[in-house]
Amino acid sequence: MFYRPSEGHGLPHNPFNAIITPRPIGWISSRGKDGSNNLAPYSFFNGVSFDPPQVMFASTGQKDDRHLGKDTTANIDETGVFCVNIVEYAQRDAMNISSQGCRGDQSEFDLADLEQVECETIACSRVADAPAALECRLTQVVSLKGASNLVVFGEVTGVYLRDDAIVDGMFDVTTFRPLSRLGYRDYSVVDTLFSLNRPDD
Amino acid sequence: MFYRPSEGHGLPHNPFNAIITPRPIGWISSRGKDGSNNLAPYSFFNGVSFDPPQVMFASTGQKDDRHLGKDTTANIDETGVFCVNIVEYAQRDAMNISSQGCRGDQSEFDLADLEQVECETIACSRVADAPAALECRLTQVVSLKGASNLVVFGEVTGVYLRDDAIVDGMFDVTTFRPLSRLGYRDYSVVDTLFSLNRPDD
Repeated sequence: MFYRPSEGHGLPHNPFNAIITPRPIGWISSRGKDGSNNLAPYSFFNGVSFDPPQVMFASTGQKDDRHLGKDTTANIDETGVFCVNIVEYAQRDAMNISSQGCRGDQSEFDLADLEQVECETIACSRVADAPAALECRLTQVVSLKGASNLVVFGEVTGVYLRDDAIVDGMFDVTTFRPLSRLGYRDYSVVDTLFSLNRPDD
Repeated sequence: MFYRPSEGHGLPHNPFNAIITPRPIGWISSRGKDGSNNLAPYSFFNGVSFDPPQVMFASTGQKDDRHLGKDTTANIDETGVFCVNIVEYAQRDAMNISSQGCRGDQSEFDLADLEQVECETIACSRVADAPAALECRLTQVVSLKGASNLVVFGEVTGVYLRDDAIVDGMFDVTTFRPLSRLGYRDYSVVDTLFSLNRPDD
């Protein structure tokens, strides 16, 4: 089938997020200037530069992340830093609870019963038990043309890797099984991997 | 372990791309003003807006995509359009061959023995057998601060979905098993999925 988004898709649910899959999840912690700590998952997230390491995520407004998206970007605007925590399969329920968000002085760290520790290179909390965390300094915020979302870019200033996930000097994702986002309400997990050699090797 | 990227990672290989996983693969077709058709995979790719649908990808320069990255972004600069093809597991070898690139008047479509068909809303080829394709018009190109990569943003003007991948009105990824990129030379595939309900439902 074929459709023009400007004319509607004609299906029971918009399939767009099921087309771009699997999406890595950036479980982003941030801190307001009042010291409050926020944590929320974003799947419009990825790297944008390998060396120096840089990342991006798109705030997805009311529909996918509700007011949390606004909290995260507001915090980053205030402090200029954020931390991307990686979500292992075992923390899927905590990640899901943190997507709900909370108001007032409650933190999603408390709501999801997650231990937080202080980052080393930025003034921000990270998820203590996460298999990896990327400490980031904001480099730029881009307003999309023709859409309301903001895209936040950051340079990675510190990398935490959980020791049990390092096998023979490699960061081995099969030790923790990263969660990923699909379409609709679906998720997947990386259980196995395989290698492809470059054709010109 | 912890490291500051500015001071090196101290591991045999840079683990950055193994931390942000699994990454969806945008198999991007583009056309030069001379009519030549280009096809190359990008894993610094994602959606950035659900409605209206918009996508991004980062050109990754010499290291990951060699001269192809330059060809793709040069083509898009010339024509203002590109198409994101989705990679099913069965096309992993063709995707890999297309990452090699070719010079002169040869096309990666020919090199990888892929049938191409014309897009409906833009003047560009798409991979005929792909499970889905997103026809895109360029909205903006952003130069990263502190890194050499370019980030290309586009709005989706047309969506092709292969009929056999639509099950009960849903785009069912288990029918084609999307390929995804991990770190090092590793890939994974989505075989199974599970659902999480929003905690506030």
